[in-house]
Amino acid sequence: MNQDYIKTDPWSIIEEGFNKELVKSSESLFSIGNGAMGQRANFEEEYTGETFQGSYIAGVYYPDKTRVGWWKNGYPEYFAKVLNAPNWIGIEILIGDELLDLNTCKSVNDFKRELNMREGWYQRSFTAQLQSGVEISVCTTRFLSLDIDEVGAIQYEITPLNQNVDITFCPYLDSGITNEDTNWDDKFWNTTNITSEGNQAFIEAHTMKTNFATCTFMEAKLLYKGSPIEISPNLKKGDTSVGLSYELAVEKGECFSIHKFGGYTVSRNHNESELVKAAKSTLQKAVTIGYEGLLQKQKEAWAQIWEMSDITIEGDVKAQQGIRFNIFQLNQTYLGKDSRLNIGPKGFTGEKYGGSTYWDTEAYCVPFYMATKNQEVAWSLLEYRYNHLEKAIENAKKLGFTNGAALYPMVTMNGEECHNEWEITFEEIHRNGAIAFAIYNYHRFTGDYSYIPKMGLEVLIGIARFWHQRVNFSEEKQQYVMLGVTGPNEYENNVNNNWYTNYLAKWCMDYAAEQVQKVKNEYPEDYKRIADKTNLTTVETEDWNKVTNNMYFPFSEKHQVFLQQDGFLDKEMIKVQDLDKSERPINQKWSWDRILRSPYIKQADVLQGFYFFEDHFSKVALEKHFDFYEPFTVHESSLSPCVHSIQAAKLGRMEQAYTFYLRTSRLDLDDYNKEVEEGLHITSMAGTWMSIVEGFGGMRVLDNQLHFTPRIPKQWDSYSFKINFRNQVITITVSEQKVSFEITGNQDLKIQVNEKPLMLTPGKVVQA
Amino acid sequence: MNQDYIKTDPWSIIEEGFNKELVKSSESLFSIGNGAMGQRANFEEEYTGETFQGSYIAGVYYPDKTRVGWWKNGYPEYFAKVLNAPNWIGIEILIGDELLDLNTCKSVNDFKRELNMREGWYQRSFTAQLQSGVEISVCTTRFLSLDIDEVGAIQYEITPLNQNVDITFCPYLDSGITNEDTNWDDKFWNTTNITSEGNQAFIEAHTMKTNFATCTFMEAKLLYKGSPIEISPNLKKGDTSVGLSYELAVEKGECFSIHKFGGYTVSRNHNESELVKAAKSTLQKAVTIGYEGLLQKQKEAWAQIWEMSDITIEGDVKAQQGIRFNIFQLNQTYLGKDSRLNIGPKGFTGEKYGGSTYWDTEAYCVPFYMATKNQEVAWSLLEYRYNHLEKAIENAKKLGFTNGAALYPMVTMNGEECHNEWEITFEEIHRNGAIAFAIYNYHRFTGDYSYIPKMGLEVLIGIARFWHQRVNFSEEKQQYVMLGVTGPNEYENNVNNNWYTNYLAKWCMDYAAEQVQKVKNEYPEDYKRIADKTNLTTVETEDWNKVTNNMYFPFSEKHQVFLQQDGFLDKEMIKVQDLDKSERPINQKWSWDRILRSPYIKQADVLQGFYFFEDHFSKVALEKHFDFYEPFTVHESSLSPCVHSIQAAKLGRMEQAYTFYLRTSRLDLDDYNKEVEEGLHITSMAGTWMSIVEGFGGMRVLDNQLHFTPRIPKQWDSYSFKINFRNQVITITVSEQKVSFEITGNQDLKIQVNEKPLMLTPGKVVQA
Repeated sequence: MNQDYIKTDPWSIIEEGFNKELVKSSESLFSIGNGAMGQRANFEEEYTGETFQGSYIAGVYYPDKTRVGWWKNGYPEYFAKVLNAPNWIGIEILIGDELLDLNTCKSVNDFKRELNMREGWYQRSFTAQLQSGVEISVCTTRFLSLDIDEVGAIQYEITPLNQNVDITFCPYLDSGITNEDTNWDDKFWNTTNITSEGNQAFIEAHTMKTNFATCTFMEAKLLYKGSPIEISPNLKKGDTSVGLSYELAVEKGECFSIHKFGGYTVSRNHNESELVKAAKSTLQKAVTIGYEGLLQKQKEAWAQIWEMSDITIEGDVKAQQGIRFNIFQLNQTYLGKDSRLNIGPKGFTGEKYGGSTYWDTEAYCVPFYMATKNQEVAWSLLEYRYNHLEKAIENAKKLGFTNGAALYPMVTMNGEECHNEWEITFEEIHRNGAIAFAIYNYHRFTGDYSYIPKMGLEVLIGIARFWHQRVNFSEEKQQYVMLGVTGPNEYENNVNNNWYTNYLAKWCMDYAAEQVQKVKNEYPEDYKRIADKTNLTTVETEDWNKVTNNMYFPFSEKHQVFLQQDGFLDKEMIKVQDLDKSERPINQKWSWDRILRSPYIKQADVLQGFYFFEDHFSKVALEKHFDFYEPFTVHESSLSPCVHSIQAAKLGRMEQAYTFYLRTSRLDLDDYNKEVEEGLHITSMAGTWMSIVEGFGGMRVLDNQLHFTPRIPKQWDSYSFKINFRNQVITITVSEQKVSFEITGNQDLKIQVNEKPLMLTPGKVVQA
Repeated sequence: MNQDYIKTDPWSIIEEGFNKELVKSSESLFSIGNGAMGQRANFEEEYTGETFQGSYIAGVYYPDKTRVGWWKNGYPEYFAKVLNAPNWIGIEILIGDELLDLNTCKSVNDFKRELNMREGWYQRSFTAQLQSGVEISVCTTRFLSLDIDEVGAIQYEITPLNQNVDITFCPYLDSGITNEDTNWDDKFWNTTNITSEGNQAFIEAHTMKTNFATCTFMEAKLLYKGSPIEISPNLKKGDTSVGLSYELAVEKGECFSIHKFGGYTVSRNHNESELVKAAKSTLQKAVTIGYEGLLQKQKEAWAQIWEMSDITIEGDVKAQQGIRFNIFQLNQTYLGKDSRLNIGPKGFTGEKYGGSTYWDTEAYCVPFYMATKNQEVAWSLLEYRYNHLEKAIENAKKLGFTNGAALYPMVTMNGEECHNEWEITFEEIHRNGAIAFAIYNYHRFTGDYSYIPKMGLEVLIGIARFWHQRVNFSEEKQQYVMLGVTGPNEYENNVNNNWYTNYLAKWCMDYAAEQVQKVKNEYPEDYKRIADKTNLTTVETEDWNKVTNNMYFPFSEKHQVFLQQDGFLDKEMIKVQDLDKSERPINQKWSWDRILRSPYIKQADVLQGFYFFEDHFSKVALEKHFDFYEPFTVHESSLSPCVHSIQAAKLGRMEQAYTFYLRTSRLDLDDYNKEVEEGLHITSMAGTWMSIVEGFGGMRVLDNQLHFTPRIPKQWDSYSFKINFRNQVITITVSEQKVSFEITGNQDLKIQVNEKPLMLTPGKVVQA
């Protein structure tokens, strides 16, 4: 744990007291988003202290020219980045002649931030004494509307406390913004037009190269003593900015406030020539509903989200706050409305990882969205990859593969590979398997097979072809091997026969062959279409099976475990607990070669395979592998603790499971990795959800049935979560004493609890 | 072969005809150098066509801030580069009002370049018709003086052919130059002072960051109709340049010419405040001797170099030209006068590899310099590394090694690591072994042991300590292994148990332990000094031996060969000859992962070990390994063909040896790798020399005796080379019919020819 300044509260994230050193961390932690845009918790007013500005528009990115030391054939030309977008939240504030700036005030008191997760808004309040001696009280609240997702609303209230004073609000838009992360200090935005009309202003700007056209817009409404007033604004226009300045003589003790409505219309969703028109129409809708009305709708929309996805924990407020923060952020990031979008590892809370898509989505996020949303959301995530299939085939071609083999990129925005480390870009190919696994997982969970004949089979064929070409026959071993890969444990590079990758490859080819057969038998028209499109031949699936029937898996007879890769046992096998504390985290303390030749594991690798394919292995085998690998695991990836928490729970090691759970659920709130100021770890938050549902709750879907093996950490009184299973919502409540179930819908549901059948009837609480 | 425009000639490199597309290639091929500075064959006069400007001062470099995509702990902050230095050769020429520029002339005829290797000068001549209609004939000759190595001289002669015309020579200096290779477009030079006095001018400038102060200087002498004339110059001064303009009305058919003397004085060799003074003194010496006098001395100096290092080949002019070009360039690059200098892979002919030192020096260059110079030159090369020992210890420390372990850098200028690819920087550690091997080799060849107690032992101890810590004990194998290395074959990265590296590590530790014992017994005072300084303990060498006695070497029982690394036989073993031609060179056609998992070898790896430690293995074993590995070798490193040529010759496969020889000796002249315009492959040129001397001549030193096993390619009538062996020069002449020897000195020398003893007597030609 690196920090503990966030107040514990079941529903809110709260900071009290103004600490300039925490501004950047809080800007991450108090971020807001609505799936279409996101906003770090930057101050609306001027702030000359250390800050990391971030406004983001989903799907608007820039191809930043690749920067490498040593170019390798096959590297992509650019790294696509979600950009810092034009600022729409800014409000310059003059108190008399003095610019309000918390960095230069004489004193700042009663500073408080609250991110209300239940209702989806963020508020900041404080009193300040300015250099002029004027004292003011400020309260500013904002949210990004779930209802009209192009718009956000701010209510900024100022009350002078010790004298009458002229106050000026100057809400503005600014497209003269930069990224902190830029390879070549490129200019990312080109401002083309700035206009204003009454209380409205518009900046049209487009991204360089990608030419995403945007209109950033705003409209201001002023209030004095609680009632609307009209003030004629003074226009302040710059090269890349526009402001509307409203001045008022304010009496001591009276509140002058502004409602600022703002946001973006984007050429992704509108005709490029009609962005201003669209902005006006959006503004009209928002202003008509008004600030209070929008806020009310916001509360209702969040209530609906929580209705389905909340997890309650009794008796452990820190754990409760942690899991809600995770669920809240996931919902702020992605809502499944748009299959062109996906989930960046930092969502809309920072620039790192460029807002791009990683295998995190399929491995960690899909289960969360499947179980807490309607199945269309998970379908959207699968469709995203289907839409990128042609690009995945191109990508594989670039690396020498033929015949429609597909390699999905390690990092992508539009389907093209963005990453440029050979050991990752070219070798961390297990990502391809996670994409196939998500298709299987979707079918397993939802029971909906239609995705496979419609879209999924083509993806599975492309992936199977890739694996089939990627392995080679070893004359020495008389088996098929896979050389030169990087597994999920990125602390090993360019290894041979990574067990996880080999296993996943075999599974992909087998699964694809099965689905080809099934679609052929059950959906002959789809089969014909797909076979024609992909030039699939009958012998091809036989060829895949030839490989899968004779695949090599490294195994230690002595330890009776699968080996992470060839040669793993040649390492110096010192356990993590025997490492000097000063050596940790090794990714900060050790040079890369030392990490690579050490046995230390960044995140689950063999165990990730046991997680995906749990039913292929006995519990005894899981225990053996867990006991063999976990002691060498440093968990230096945010994606590591959750899998271990789930497996520890399965093995009945609740103390260990709970420790891993805390680490994943409060990773950002407690800033375990000393980097929260860069943004939040959004995708690993889905892992936290899995830790409770799959770990403590022991939820699985086997043979079209929900299974539970509920356990509870001794620190908790009880916990409860819900699962949307095939259009019925099951609520599970677990305490030390009892486990109870409730379902919605109008039909009974047979489930398995601790391997015993249990019949659930709508409207009835059933105890297991 | 990529080009064949260079005329075949035994002593000169000749180009005829003006082809703008070849300008950059010729600028490399016709480069001149004198060990202290170097100059690409750029035109003196204005040239607006494609050109790659390069003037270089030995040892003057700039630390260019590292550029990487993904930083790894342990990377150096900068990459030291030899810089493009201020231009001293420039002469602006006005013919009437028209600037002479071969890119804009109406026609250029009789264009010829000649690099006279026998005498060490470069000449360019042509006639040109200008836009004005004036026709002129030009002949310009230049050289960098071996005698006064701070100075170069140019004679530029112009004769108007069809009319009287005013001609202006404006010799100039220019410090406003840039590098083609720069990571961040930094400014490298800061110009501080520009002065002139009569026919002299001076620019003082220093490099940014490293603060190497330089004075670039020049003096001009004019001649008309063959006699000196005085013309008052007009001064042309810019921010970073200074010119002296001399105008003369020249009669048709008469020659107007200029002698320009110029060069650099540098704070590496002079007091910084006295650079102009030093420049004036150097100029005075040069001008006093005069152009003709300097040229005469140049011829004498080169005659002396050739006297000792020439190799003659009868019956094959291409081969003759090739080997002389190689020997010439090596002598232009490094003369062993200054132990702060070393041999960059491109010498003074381009920017690539930053002019830095690689293991090429110890592995390839030391043997050449040992056998063709006095032993002091090789000593200087060894001392260079001794002087960097502290930095090598620091470097190892940075990577986690302790107790005085030393890791020499992969690439260096001042002893600090410059490179930044983890798989090379941190893992291509075999370079450490080559440095120890050079110490052994020096003693073996010269018989001079004094280097070891004086300096070498400390280096050997640091290196042995590194290896001792770098291996680890494998519980699985019950042997010591070395994980995560890159061997000489850089087409494999991060492999386990690279045989070459393991073997070299074992040898280093054994050799160091032996030398510790020998110095202890025979040089007790040196031993005490070194043991104190290094905290050497008696048990330490025993610890080394514990490892070397139980080191693991991958071996195939089936093929009866050592394996390049663990798992090598799992690859798809398709021989190079069975690869489609369109796939070659693989480093241009394939992505990096595909190269890595292929069996293809960039340059000798296991065979490099057989080359270094030839007497550890039988000829049968060599043949087995050669036959196993060569078919998978793509020779995409310039350092590859020479070792294979030597081993093919040893195995009596003269056709193959000859093919490899041609490839190494004419690599640049025929531009095999399509990159000669970037500069020449200087270090591999030493490999060419080895191909003849050690390959065809079969020269070895064993037990303090010279051994020869002479063979001759059937394409040659005869060949002859000389060896400076312990202060006696042995000349060996080999033809199909006979082999003869001659020695200098005043004592007899017993050698071995084809494993039979032969006594040589000074002044007597002895046939074997």
